[in-house]
Amino acid sequence: MNASKLAGRGAERPDTGARETARRTKTRERLMDAAYRQFSEHGINGTSVEAITDDAGFTRGAFYSNFSSKEELFFALTERENRVRLEVLRENFARLVAPLGDTAGKPAPHLIEGIIADVLSFQPDNRQWCLMQSEFRLLALRDPEVAPRFLAASQSFLRELAAMVDTAVRSVGVRFLIDTLDLTRMLMDQFDSAMQEAILSGAEDPEAVVREHVMRTLPLLVHSLTDTIEP
Amino acid sequence: MNASKLAGRGAERPDTGARETARRTKTRERLMDAAYRQFSEHGINGTSVEAITDDAGFTRGAFYSNFSSKEELFFALTERENRVRLEVLRENFARLVAPLGDTAGKPAPHLIEGIIADVLSFQPDNRQWCLMQSEFRLLALRDPEVAPRFLAASQSFLRELAAMVDTAVRSVGVRFLIDTLDLTRMLMDQFDSAMQEAILSGAEDPEAVVREHVMRTLPLLVHSLTDTIEP
Repeated sequence: MNASKLAGRGAERPDTGARETARRTKTRERLMDAAYRQFSEHGINGTSVEAITDDAGFTRGAFYSNFSSKEELFFALTERENRVRLEVLRENFARLVAPLGDTAGKPAPHLIEGIIADVLSFQPDNRQWCLMQSEFRLLALRDPEVAPRFLAASQSFLRELAAMVDTAVRSVGVRFLIDTLDLTRMLMDQFDSAMQEAILSGAEDPEAVVREHVMRTLPLLVHSLTDTIEP
Repeated sequence: MNASKLAGRGAERPDTGARETARRTKTRERLMDAAYRQFSEHGINGTSVEAITDDAGFTRGAFYSNFSSKEELFFALTERENRVRLEVLRENFARLVAPLGDTAGKPAPHLIEGIIADVLSFQPDNRQWCLMQSEFRLLALRDPEVAPRFLAASQSFLRELAAMVDTAVRSVGVRFLIDTLDLTRMLMDQFDSAMQEAILSGAEDPEAVVREHVMRTLPLLVHSLTDTIEP
């Protein structure tokens, strides 16, 4: 039975329900976009629910029928942002690593370097995101109610990214000498720290500074920590 | 000419000056101790100059004759804390690495592991320090006036630590495959991130969790990234 038949059964509900869901999704998206703008400019602590609803053109009622709190909205924002990032990375990995499957043995450092550079060059802009994450992390560090969920969100992102890295290296016949999750975490920490340093130094193009910084160590690090898989 | 002769010359100034300096140092130390307590409990943003002077038992006047602002005091606190940490690390390195100078070739992983574990086990407690640093880093990320000095303080700490690590590895006839400063930064980032995760997870003894975490990757990382120096 297809969807149009279901809708044709005379029940008004399914259609109304679908429209209702679509509208709800749109409202949530607009609230998240407004929150992103406000959080970027004034920080999470410096942003009120009113500032978000004013920016989005909604009432407080609309806010609270979608999110129980500012923190709740931030978690939704994190989920959305992480999903986009992982999607971009997944595509880059698939496109760039697949052609390597043919080469025998451990890829040469310059090949690893090329792939890492290419994967990174497609990462979305993340200066603002780094600031927001820093602020929310601090909030979580100080608030035992926010902490477990913040930790779960970070770990889930890291696990998905590590699985992706694992698939990529296996596909070229290589394995890491240390746990992939530990290695992925190490690389993410390097990115975060490099981004913070680029912002602190007042760099005009922090993303470029980060790339230059991580490219100085990442290729050799990956090369030193990999080994060919015994057939 | 010795000090007592100088003092005996009838000039009251040198002695008064010395006493004045000692008293001033003591006042600054007490203000820093009070700030450490208040910042730990209420955060930097949540702590007023009054809260610090009340805790220390001084007037606002005493505060401002020693520090121009809360930020200024935090920089002094950072300098003091970093000095203590570097001193502890320097002693540990000297005591633990020196005996290795005799062994020929690259030290075995279990030796590296033992040294790292020993060096770490003497690090001072740093849960509170991690929280304060996170908060101050965020403040610096958002404030272009604070940023350059925060960055300079972090980099100076890192440089001193890297020089220490460099001396230690050279003394056992080993060199790193990547720049020591980059490697040291990478290790520090791992520590920070592990400490944050331990706090977020509500660990009762976060320092122990951090040690366990870094010991999982650090020894192999150091082993993979070192090479013997050609004689």
